[in-house]
Amino acid sequence: MREETIRSGRTRIEWARAHMPIMERIRARFAVERPFEGLTIGICLHVEAKTGVWVETLTAGGAKIRVTGSPGSTQDDVAAALNEMPGVVAFGARRETYEEHLDHCRAVLSGRPDLIADNGADLHGLIAVEVPFAGLKGTLRGATEETTTGGYRLREEMPPFGFATWVINDTRAKRVVENRYGVGSSVVDGLMRATNLMLHGKTVVLIGYGYCGSGVAQRLRGMGAHVVVVDTDPMTRLEAHLEGFRTLPFDHALPIADIVVTVTGRTNALDARMLALLPDNCLIANAGHFATEIDLPHLRALAVETVQVREHVEALRLQDGRRIYLVAKGNLINLAAGDGNPIEIMDLGLALQSLSLEQLARHGRALPAGVHSVRADIEAEVAALAVRAWVDEAPAAA
Amino acid sequence: MREETIRSGRTRIEWARAHMPIMERIRARFAVERPFEGLTIGICLHVEAKTGVWVETLTAGGAKIRVTGSPGSTQDDVAAALNEMPGVVAFGARRETYEEHLDHCRAVLSGRPDLIADNGADLHGLIAVEVPFAGLKGTLRGATEETTTGGYRLREEMPPFGFATWVINDTRAKRVVENRYGVGSSVVDGLMRATNLMLHGKTVVLIGYGYCGSGVAQRLRGMGAHVVVVDTDPMTRLEAHLEGFRTLPFDHALPIADIVVTVTGRTNALDARMLALLPDNCLIANAGHFATEIDLPHLRALAVETVQVREHVEALRLQDGRRIYLVAKGNLINLAAGDGNPIEIMDLGLALQSLSLEQLARHGRALPAGVHSVRADIEAEVAALAVRAWVDEAPAAA
Amino acid sequence: MREETIRSGRTRIEWARAHMPIMERIRARFAVERPFEGLTIGICLHVEAKTGVWVETLTAGGAKIRVTGSPGSTQDDVAAALNEMPGVVAFGARRETYEEHLDHCRAVLSGRPDLIADNGADLHGLIAVEVPFAGLKGTLRGATEETTTGGYRLREEMPPFGFATWVINDTRAKRVVENRYGVGSSVVDGLMRATNLMLHGKTVVLIGYGYCGSGVAQRLRGMGAHVVVVDTDPMTRLEAHLEGFRTLPFDHALPIADIVVTVTGRTNALDARMLALLPDNCLIANAGHFATEIDLPHLRALAVETVQVREHVEALRLQDGRRIYLVAKGNLINLAAGDGNPIEIMDLGLALQSLSLEQLARHGRALPAGVHSVRADIEAEVAALAVRAWVDEAPAAA
Amino acid sequence: MREETIRSGRTRIEWARAHMPIMERIRARFAVERPFEGLTIGICLHVEAKTGVWVETLTAGGAKIRVTGSPGSTQDDVAAALNEMPGVVAFGARRETYEEHLDHCRAVLSGRPDLIADNGADLHGLIAVEVPFAGLKGTLRGATEETTTGGYRLREEMPPFGFATWVINDTRAKRVVENRYGVGSSVVDGLMRATNLMLHGKTVVLIGYGYCGSGVAQRLRGMGAHVVVVDTDPMTRLEAHLEGFRTLPFDHALPIADIVVTVTGRTNALDARMLALLPDNCLIANAGHFATEIDLPHLRALAVETVQVREHVEALRLQDGRRIYLVAKGNLINLAAGDGNPIEIMDLGLALQSLSLEQLARHGRALPAGVHSVRADIEAEVAALAVRAWVDEAPAAA
Repeated sequence: MREETIRSGRTRIEWARAHMPIMERIRARFAVERPFEGLTIGICLHVEAKTGVWVETLTAGGAKIRVTGSPGSTQDDVAAALNEMPGVVAFGARRETYEEHLDHCRAVLSGRPDLIADNGADLHGLIAVEVPFAGLKGTLRGATEETTTGGYRLREEMPPFGFATWVINDTRAKRVVENRYGVGSSVVDGLMRATNLMLHGKTVVLIGYGYCGSGVAQRLRGMGAHVVVVDTDPMTRLEAHLEGFRTLPFDHALPIADIVVTVTGRTNALDARMLALLPDNCLIANAGHFATEIDLPHLRALAVETVQVREHVEALRLQDGRRIYLVAKGNLINLAAGDGNPIEIMDLGLALQSLSLEQLARHGRALPAGVHSVRADIEAEVAALAVRAWVDEAPAAA
Repeated sequence: MREETIRSGRTRIEWARAHMPIMERIRARFAVERPFEGLTIGICLHVEAKTGVWVETLTAGGAKIRVTGSPGSTQDDVAAALNEMPGVVAFGARRETYEEHLDHCRAVLSGRPDLIADNGADLHGLIAVEVPFAGLKGTLRGATEETTTGGYRLREEMPPFGFATWVINDTRAKRVVENRYGVGSSVVDGLMRATNLMLHGKTVVLIGYGYCGSGVAQRLRGMGAHVVVVDTDPMTRLEAHLEGFRTLPFDHALPIADIVVTVTGRTNALDARMLALLPDNCLIANAGHFATEIDLPHLRALAVETVQVREHVEALRLQDGRRIYLVAKGNLINLAAGDGNPIEIMDLGLALQSLSLEQLARHGRALPAGVHSVRADIEAEVAALAVRAWVDEAPAAA
Repeated sequence: MREETIRSGRTRIEWARAHMPIMERIRARFAVERPFEGLTIGICLHVEAKTGVWVETLTAGGAKIRVTGSPGSTQDDVAAALNEMPGVVAFGARRETYEEHLDHCRAVLSGRPDLIADNGADLHGLIAVEVPFAGLKGTLRGATEETTTGGYRLREEMPPFGFATWVINDTRAKRVVENRYGVGSSVVDGLMRATNLMLHGKTVVLIGYGYCGSGVAQRLRGMGAHVVVVDTDPMTRLEAHLEGFRTLPFDHALPIADIVVTVTGRTNALDARMLALLPDNCLIANAGHFATEIDLPHLRALAVETVQVREHVEALRLQDGRRIYLVAKGNLINLAAGDGNPIEIMDLGLALQSLSLEQLARHGRALPAGVHSVRADIEAEVAALAVRAWVDEAPAAA
Repeated sequence: MREETIRSGRTRIEWARAHMPIMERIRARFAVERPFEGLTIGICLHVEAKTGVWVETLTAGGAKIRVTGSPGSTQDDVAAALNEMPGVVAFGARRETYEEHLDHCRAVLSGRPDLIADNGADLHGLIAVEVPFAGLKGTLRGATEETTTGGYRLREEMPPFGFATWVINDTRAKRVVENRYGVGSSVVDGLMRATNLMLHGKTVVLIGYGYCGSGVAQRLRGMGAHVVVVDTDPMTRLEAHLEGFRTLPFDHALPIADIVVTVTGRTNALDARMLALLPDNCLIANAGHFATEIDLPHLRALAVETVQVREHVEALRLQDGRRIYLVAKGNLINLAAGDGNPIEIMDLGLALQSLSLEQLARHGRALPAGVHSVRADIEAEVAALAVRAWVDEAPAAA
């Protein structure tokens, strides 16, 4: 049984590895240069196949790894496979509470890592407030933080740490590749999977037209949908309009929607007043990071009956007789109803992670302390690696 | 347990019904006009939620129904729910052999139906050769056949039956709506689900550029793929070229493919000679009706190792060292790795079925016997119903 | 002066020839096979550079040529250059009346041609009714007719001629290549030239969504316009809707138009009732064959003031105060405000002409008399020539 | 004669005015608030219809105007019409030398303007070096500069002036609206006009994929071209690749080009080494600001014969036998072979000018001296005006 679980985890990792050519190139160099020789890296990131490939890459560079995931996203077979790798300890399980998650973070930190790779600033938070980990402030060579949200927490809500923390998501590479293309296509994927509906001819109202939103808009149009953009910023509306999309004020847009997708990064992007405007049978989904983009408490309060009509779709019968379909309980549709970010996106993101950790390992506390974006030269190197892997050495270049 | 199964089936049917507005309009009329009063309809069609909505529509028109599915496609909970409807008997189960399937077809026919709705000509085949059903040739008012393949079998391989059989798929409505748009988007859906890969930037070689193929090409381009079209017909190549797609001879196209999709309707569209040209790590999938578009026996013979790397993907290590990924064992990718045709497609297709059966019920043997396409006036009426439901009475028309 | 005119005509022909690779291949074969040795071909077709290249091709095949154009479209320098070629006589001038045009047609016929290539059936018409040319019915080996309209006139309004007339435009090659792609892009070209307006963000209402209309719709969308399709056929509306275009009834569409383009092939596609719905400042243009698609007499009657605001745009102040901009006096916008069909389109169309005339020359009166479409095998040969020239031997195939 | 010239100029201005709704709104406000009461504005900008509408707007705000154009771009009839307006003096003529142009600039400055609107820093340059105008340094309230190039000259090559100069082109509004959409479509327009060739199926190699280049790429794809992107920046290549464009190194791209378009902002983007790679019959054009993007001296030196084959196309026969077509002598194709920027682009750009001059008029020397971008609040106000005019109050919003 356990053997089977490990084998399953390894197969997943192998599939991911075959589609992570950037990681492959970095691993080859790390294996020669061993930048992490003798160092321990503490990681908090979704424990799934792509992270598994990354762990391989770091260990090839000489690192010892202590890793845990986020609540709900751990793939148990991948965790089992990781625990079989020499020098790697993985904590966590799919069904864990937030408190258990924090315990696993503590387990990561108890290994006295030299570097940390954080996600949402959970590790940083423990270092900031819990006595046993306070000493890490003085010993850590540096840290990375995956998310913009984590970067915000670090800048606004936490004291200085004395070492450098580089925020991965604050890069053009991530914004363009992950937000525009990755999210753009995985939202379409998630919508089709969740509903088995055809997008051709559907009027989809998109709330938000930033990097993610414009990517989603392009892909929906590519699938034959009639996209209507709602955005409050005039310059952004202008851009959407000239790009060929209808842009309407929300009170004109929502009543004509077959589907509404929020992707704003703001709370209550679809608020009580707007929920009142949805037509009968409207389907609503969120593609923003937090489930709070839709005012779910209000929506739930309006519902007199709720039926799970498909795995990821609830039908809510409201007091006024309308039926509203809610996808994935308002969670990020591409993660909840899909497979998350495509492998290639993570290949690029983890390359930024790897080269950042390498610099922090090499130069550590000589680097300016505090929260910073990833350095431009590292971003340029990753872009060059991506072009080589995806374009210049792809079969199509032959 | 059985209660739960029935409830599950009913929930599926309800979801489908909410997205089949054409069927809704037809049902309302049938309930008044009762065109099938006193008649029994024998049906062979995938027993799943959309078929369930159709069965409701026909019973609303006064029909008694005996229905079975195709091997492997029956949804057991839908079958259970159907068996609870008055006047409906459903046969079959997901796990059934082809021989069991034929027994279920015999069970359908043993009810002495007045009309039959066939799929692949299985019911017709039994009437043609088995003595107990020979009498139906003289009593049936008429029949429909869903597939072009079934139409071919009827025309080429079976004797005349003495009643009219109308082939549903031989219509512009089906070809445009189902083939170009339905297949176009469900193939993209299937590819993303099966692989979790990003289509942006991938070189996808598409073999075949007919109604289905051109639809697939447009959707892939809409998702950022680099599409290369291979087709042997000069006029078709010209069209693809002017539409903005690269069109290459197969020996230039295949070596540059990240992904190959066949959609030709022909056997061995990807044959031994072509398989030899695929680059390492190439992923191959079929979007044509039959799994024979890829020469699987040859491919399997070349493989020295086969690993199931994802639910719908096998990695085959070939003798020459290349690794080839095969999606869904070469079966139609949108059905095998996805949810089949979107609901709206079936709403339109089953509308063609419903109005055809109505004519056959009303005028029966007064109509010309033999195999015919659906009449143009019926097709026009269905198109008009679709425009009303999807466009003129959609929220966006408000 | 005359030398300069001839040189100018030759330069135009040379530019066209460099972009007519299909004609090049045919000319090379004709020069060897000489299928028109000793024969005279009478031609009525726009006397401009592309026709000049065609005339070269036919003379290379041994033909003597007598050619005239259509009223208003003759390029005088090309005519001058043609008259310098051995074996060629060209009649006509840019400024000629319809009566003068008919005289030139008579001049063509007075050369007792063995084959004729007609345009709008003007030559056929003279043969049908004028005594001096009646004898041609018995001597002509055959004829081609460029336009569908001419084909209609021949079938419906003229007596049988005793020889075969093949209609060039009744082919998939012409419909797809010329109508969808040629007209699609030249209408966009014409709109931009005539107005210097930006199409991005403009609401363009397109009346008619056939081969031409759907091509225009795709190109307008490609230029960032918001396209709204008006069509009366349900199946066509359905197709436009699923393709991602808004389709509205005309009374909803016209009041929101920045620009209206007719492309229906019907008279009064924009009639009095519809003109009343246009908003102030609306710009209207016609992309259909005849200027009658817009009810111009009615529009002119409504106008209290008319100013030519740009070379191809009139501003009409109507009685009710609205200002309507009329492009190119309602004439086919791509011809009137642009340069007509792109060279490549004519390369393909004249290839159909050339191979048709060759068959008629070789087999003449052994072929079935009457009006026919171009034979499928000729169309296939032209498609194959086009693929070779445009794709397989293009620089991109290197 | 003179009457006719003036009338012609007025008709041009009227056409422009009807399509400049942003200017209309600003003019209405200016007419009430009179921000330029008693002030003189000296302007150096292309004297054509759109500038005429702007001059009307400024005079409505109380300004006296002295205006001249750039060498070669003055429309004489518009200049005549401007000279008829009270309070306006226009200098210059289409055929003027650069020295005459400078004289006209001197004439503008000799009116002792309170504000200047410059283009390429020609007015600033005279103030910097010529004694009679030195006093303006102390009296001018402020200035605008239209171009990025002029901004560069001001920052790098000229001494400080003591007043504020705001650079119009350094705004997201201009970059997105003008560069991506305006240039994107006008380049396509220019290519079609210059050549009468069809873009469908043509392989167009685009050198440069910035704001302009990506806009051109999208429009070319929208017209059916096969676009190949060449860019040296890895991140930019990555973006083009994921957007669905082939990106090749120049030595692979150029030999497969039917058409090459440069749009890099750099000198010799198509240099001697690259010219050597072009295939026979290749057509080359420049969409960058300066004609120096193509190494024309080298190209001319290679040519053994040059023929003007169309108004804007030269055919150069090179020593090695290749024929290369050069469009518009390497000048910016959309200006040289087209009508320049669409009216709407200038409506937005001149709105930025107007609101900037208003601020400079109101607050003058209280504003920080030196060269600055337009303030964000002004840009936001212009974007809001544009959305109101183009979207919320367009017919489509009705």
